[in-house]
Amino acid sequence: MKIELLLILPLLTIFFNCSNTTTNNYEIQSPNSSNRIVIKLNDAVPEYSVYHNDVPVITPSKLGIALRSQPDFSQGLEITDAVQSSFDETWEQPWGVQRLIRNHYNELRLTLVTTAEPRRKLVVVFRAFDDGVAFRYEFPEQGHLNDFVIMDELTEFNLPADNESWWIGAYQWNRYEYLYEHTPVSSVGKSHTPFTMQTADGLCLSIHEAALTDYASMTLENRGGNSLKCDLVPWAEGDKVRAAAPHVSPWRTIQIADKPGDLITSYLILNLNEPSRITDTNWIQPGKYVGIWWGMHIGTFTWGSGDKHGANNANVKRYIDFAAEHGFPGVLVEGWNTGWDGDWVANGNIFSFTEAHPDFDLPELSRYAAEKGVRIIGHHETSKGIGNYETQVEAAFQLYQDYGINTVKTGYVGHGQNIQRYENGEPTDHLEWHHGQYMVNHYRKVTELAARYGIMLDVHEPIKDTGIRRTWPNLMTREGARGQEFNAWSEDGGNSPDHTTTIPFTRCLAGPFDFTPGIFDLHFTEAGRPANRVSTTLAKQLALYLTIYSPLHMAADLPENYTGQPAFEFIKMVPTDWERTEVLNAAISQYLIIARRDRHSADWFLGSITDESPRNFQVALTFLEPGRTYRATIYADGPHADWDTNPYAVTIFEQEVTSATVLSLKLAPGGGQAIRFTPTD
Amino acid sequence: MKIELLLILPLLTIFFNCSNTTTNNYEIQSPNSSNRIVIKLNDAVPEYSVYHNDVPVITPSKLGIALRSQPDFSQGLEITDAVQSSFDETWEQPWGVQRLIRNHYNELRLTLVTTAEPRRKLVVVFRAFDDGVAFRYEFPEQGHLNDFVIMDELTEFNLPADNESWWIGAYQWNRYEYLYEHTPVSSVGKSHTPFTMQTADGLCLSIHEAALTDYASMTLENRGGNSLKCDLVPWAEGDKVRAAAPHVSPWRTIQIADKPGDLITSYLILNLNEPSRITDTNWIQPGKYVGIWWGMHIGTFTWGSGDKHGANNANVKRYIDFAAEHGFPGVLVEGWNTGWDGDWVANGNIFSFTEAHPDFDLPELSRYAAEKGVRIIGHHETSKGIGNYETQVEAAFQLYQDYGINTVKTGYVGHGQNIQRYENGEPTDHLEWHHGQYMVNHYRKVTELAARYGIMLDVHEPIKDTGIRRTWPNLMTREGARGQEFNAWSEDGGNSPDHTTTIPFTRCLAGPFDFTPGIFDLHFTEAGRPANRVSTTLAKQLALYLTIYSPLHMAADLPENYTGQPAFEFIKMVPTDWERTEVLNAAISQYLIIARRDRHSADWFLGSITDESPRNFQVALTFLEPGRTYRATIYADGPHADWDTNPYAVTIFEQEVTSATVLSLKLAPGGGQAIRFTPTD
Repeated sequence: MKIELLLILPLLTIFFNCSNTTTNNYEIQSPNSSNRIVIKLNDAVPEYSVYHNDVPVITPSKLGIALRSQPDFSQGLEITDAVQSSFDETWEQPWGVQRLIRNHYNELRLTLVTTAEPRRKLVVVFRAFDDGVAFRYEFPEQGHLNDFVIMDELTEFNLPADNESWWIGAYQWNRYEYLYEHTPVSSVGKSHTPFTMQTADGLCLSIHEAALTDYASMTLENRGGNSLKCDLVPWAEGDKVRAAAPHVSPWRTIQIADKPGDLITSYLILNLNEPSRITDTNWIQPGKYVGIWWGMHIGTFTWGSGDKHGANNANVKRYIDFAAEHGFPGVLVEGWNTGWDGDWVANGNIFSFTEAHPDFDLPELSRYAAEKGVRIIGHHETSKGIGNYETQVEAAFQLYQDYGINTVKTGYVGHGQNIQRYENGEPTDHLEWHHGQYMVNHYRKVTELAARYGIMLDVHEPIKDTGIRRTWPNLMTREGARGQEFNAWSEDGGNSPDHTTTIPFTRCLAGPFDFTPGIFDLHFTEAGRPANRVSTTLAKQLALYLTIYSPLHMAADLPENYTGQPAFEFIKMVPTDWERTEVLNAAISQYLIIARRDRHSADWFLGSITDESPRNFQVALTFLEPGRTYRATIYADGPHADWDTNPYAVTIFEQEVTSATVLSLKLAPGGGQAIRFTPTD
Repeated sequence: MKIELLLILPLLTIFFNCSNTTTNNYEIQSPNSSNRIVIKLNDAVPEYSVYHNDVPVITPSKLGIALRSQPDFSQGLEITDAVQSSFDETWEQPWGVQRLIRNHYNELRLTLVTTAEPRRKLVVVFRAFDDGVAFRYEFPEQGHLNDFVIMDELTEFNLPADNESWWIGAYQWNRYEYLYEHTPVSSVGKSHTPFTMQTADGLCLSIHEAALTDYASMTLENRGGNSLKCDLVPWAEGDKVRAAAPHVSPWRTIQIADKPGDLITSYLILNLNEPSRITDTNWIQPGKYVGIWWGMHIGTFTWGSGDKHGANNANVKRYIDFAAEHGFPGVLVEGWNTGWDGDWVANGNIFSFTEAHPDFDLPELSRYAAEKGVRIIGHHETSKGIGNYETQVEAAFQLYQDYGINTVKTGYVGHGQNIQRYENGEPTDHLEWHHGQYMVNHYRKVTELAARYGIMLDVHEPIKDTGIRRTWPNLMTREGARGQEFNAWSEDGGNSPDHTTTIPFTRCLAGPFDFTPGIFDLHFTEAGRPANRVSTTLAKQLALYLTIYSPLHMAADLPENYTGQPAFEFIKMVPTDWERTEVLNAAISQYLIIARRDRHSADWFLGSITDESPRNFQVALTFLEPGRTYRATIYADGPHADWDTNPYAVTIFEQEVTSATVLSLKLAPGGGQAIRFTPTD
């Protein structure tokens, strides 16, 4: 629903010297003037700089595009046109961390033309927001630019100082599944985005992209010192982007925040995406789920058939019963289809997406689920066999639709650049990176097809989120980082205590993350893997439902591990759709205290987590409605709780509070706290 | 041995207008003036054209290099220096198709400098030979060019007309193992080189490269019409070449011949390589070999252990006995090492290169071979596990050296871009194309290491030959095209009759090819594969020892298939090292008649092959020494011979001839003829 729209107006309040041909300087400021972009031609090469309250954030950095077999848009350019405008709109998300979002920016469109004949045109569009800046390249339709291949995007992000940074390496496994590095920018190699930084003065920055569509994913390369450069993930043959004019690049975004929490509540990425292409979004419903999944990771179940086959009728019914009893709308079932008995890691083409194991009766189970008010969540693991999946995906969605399944988890397991390309109806021997243009387009194609079949998606091993959920809100959540399962089997001992305090400021700036929290048996002794465990306290597992946002949030542990656990009540009650979000206190990779108001009630929830350090906080509950009394149900680390030595100690208690209350929070090492606030009047 | 060297002299006979700044045209002619390169700046963009006897061969075509994050060498260039020189030298090959080779060219070095500051330099060096032209880029040491990344080489090959062409697609399996396409240039997609063409006027052209060193392999891309462009095989991350100044590109070569046979006897590629880095080449000895190999392809043996394990002591001794009896110096043994019992196709890292199967006793077998005057030829199959190989290769060469093995066949089986990269002592999840800079460097590293251990190499699934054997003459031969084994198992029915009449004009222009001819059981009925066979006559199998050059040539069939076969005598007597080579008659992909003189006797040999068409030729034996009488031992297609219906009919007869004799050759469909000429006086 569109709430408010100011028409695009000439903006008189910003400084704008389009006609100043002597310096060739152009400038655009954000509505509150805090952020400013300056663009100039330096010896006919375009450069931009960014200032925050007149402090340089980005020093002069080149812009440009290198084309294949055509003169580049990198030098010999002049500016022939500059158009300014302003935009202010508040729009409503169908679901998310914040129902109403204001999209307020000033825009400058610069037309760059090559001085050499044929005089070809490139438009660079800059937008200045109060929470950051963005720009993108547009390739207008023109006589001398039809099909083209981008060999390199020359965009630089030069920094005035060697900022602290948090990042994950690109071109490794290439599935974003790493613990974050914490180094000065000068020690960065090649990094994925979001790329988060903090300056010596405490200013917080995140470089990312928005609206990644029919283009290669941007990674960042450090080329020495404090200079980062856009490094597009290539096609197998080395091309970066294959396109035809008119075409646009994704937005290059720099979020700018005076404190870490403001990065989390910046909606700049969403604002740079197009409005929803799905008109009726009523069928798109966030919710929690349980499922046959964690058991595979800890060795209780198998995906393939046999004695431990998880997806057998009796076990699925047991999970459906559990979901119905505790109010979870979804039951994920992995390993239901044929293919898992073969060497699917080596060959994803052996999967069928419509044929079930003999002990999985889809018609009966979907009937049984419906009777209990629950839905099965479907599962498609491609294991990099893209051709095989593309030939089957429509029939597979049709099958699910026929049986009332409206959510599907997809997976793209595989290391390195091992996506098998699909061309002219056949798989080829070409392997593609997960994150090049080919896969960007594949993921989008599947999203659009899913929308046609009324299916919500939870994409594992995805392309990173760049706000596409605004345009395709059936793309609910993604993995795209180290999730809970790394605790089960990773050789480095799982996720360190500061992993969950880092991702809210890095991966989660991109969008929802299906981390699958809620493990209660932190040592999952059944699996017989003594070295592996979950490195949090139990209370922190609860807090993760707040500190990580996912519209589809899993209660990941085995049903039997929730039995008789009072803390399970918190998982049952925590919402997945929010009216608004406020960050109360935060330090990147150290701690986070976040409050969110339920979208469908007056309840507030608070989540707080810490890294290995124990911490005490005084939190003023000013976010609560003044004058009302709330009952706070508090799930706190218990006496002597410690993620390492005493993780299960949890204290659950109640307390009356108002907006004037200052609450004491005591977090154990690797601990957390989760609170529900319910009005009592 | 250096035979003759003219000092580099100012060359006064060529037209040269370095000082002509009004047209900015530069020109260099070949010594006999038949070939001419014209270079000019077109709006500050360098272009070259090539003429053969004043007929345009290459119309104006761009030159240039696109760099990453630095201004390109593609426009805004001026020529600041032009230096001409001439060179004439005759040098001796340690082995090959021609002992003495004349290297005679005129050279023009143009220094291009960017007009924009910092004024950076690129040198383009042009050489005009009587058999073609070549040029390369040099990146001199300079203040403003240290480390750099080539994102695209802009070299074009624009053709004045839509020439006939013969080519194999790049970016497919990517191992060069295809039947050749025969299309107009306008129908080419992406092609490997050598890329062979014939114009409407009959002029023959081949585009290739020479001295491919620390650079990406060049493929050609058709960008519409008659325009080809250099398309460098990328690194996994899309970079094309990573280098630091000073650096040089390989030579881009265009061989130009008035008739097809002159392409075969052009030594331009070798001439553009550096002289041997191995001082004492006496240990490098061409020769023929038999081996435990074809049996694996037709199902008689297995690489892995078990009943049919080929590399067992008894079987190896049987092959050694056979080699000793018939005068073959080498016995190839594949499947001797551990790893073959695992899923080596999926995982090359399971190979050991020093540990033998228990039924293969290397000390005893090498002792036994030495006693019989035979050497085992070692075998290293990496199956794309480069890291695994690099950690073991030195120990593996040491082991072979310890047991007197001085020849190793290496293999790099694997489809698509699936070479597992090795970095900092560990395999990574990065997959590389077979033919990018990473593997170019790997192949070279192994070659240099082999030289240190006195080991000759026969590389299968190699990087294409670009004349490196001049610099590293221990790199004897390579596969790099569809060899004999495709007849055994390929799903398309094997190599068509015109495959062997095409490769002398395409693949073999690059260098020696270990095709493994000499199959006598053309239907290899033991294998139980009724659809597969060898599509030649038996006589054509003999002729292949002449029409395909390899310094290591195999007698590929099972020993038992040679027993009692008089035609086997030809395989026993045919040399692998030649004093000189003459092509007597040839049409690309249709037929070839070639004569070669033994390097170590006065004998001449003649090989002649045809495609599916039967052909009769009259051949004047003018290559024989005048005044001498020779006994010709002729292995011809027999009565009614036909590759399809009657392939085994072979007629062996003798005839006295002189240089005045005109010999009648009658070739059956898919047939051939092989002749030895021995002086009788």
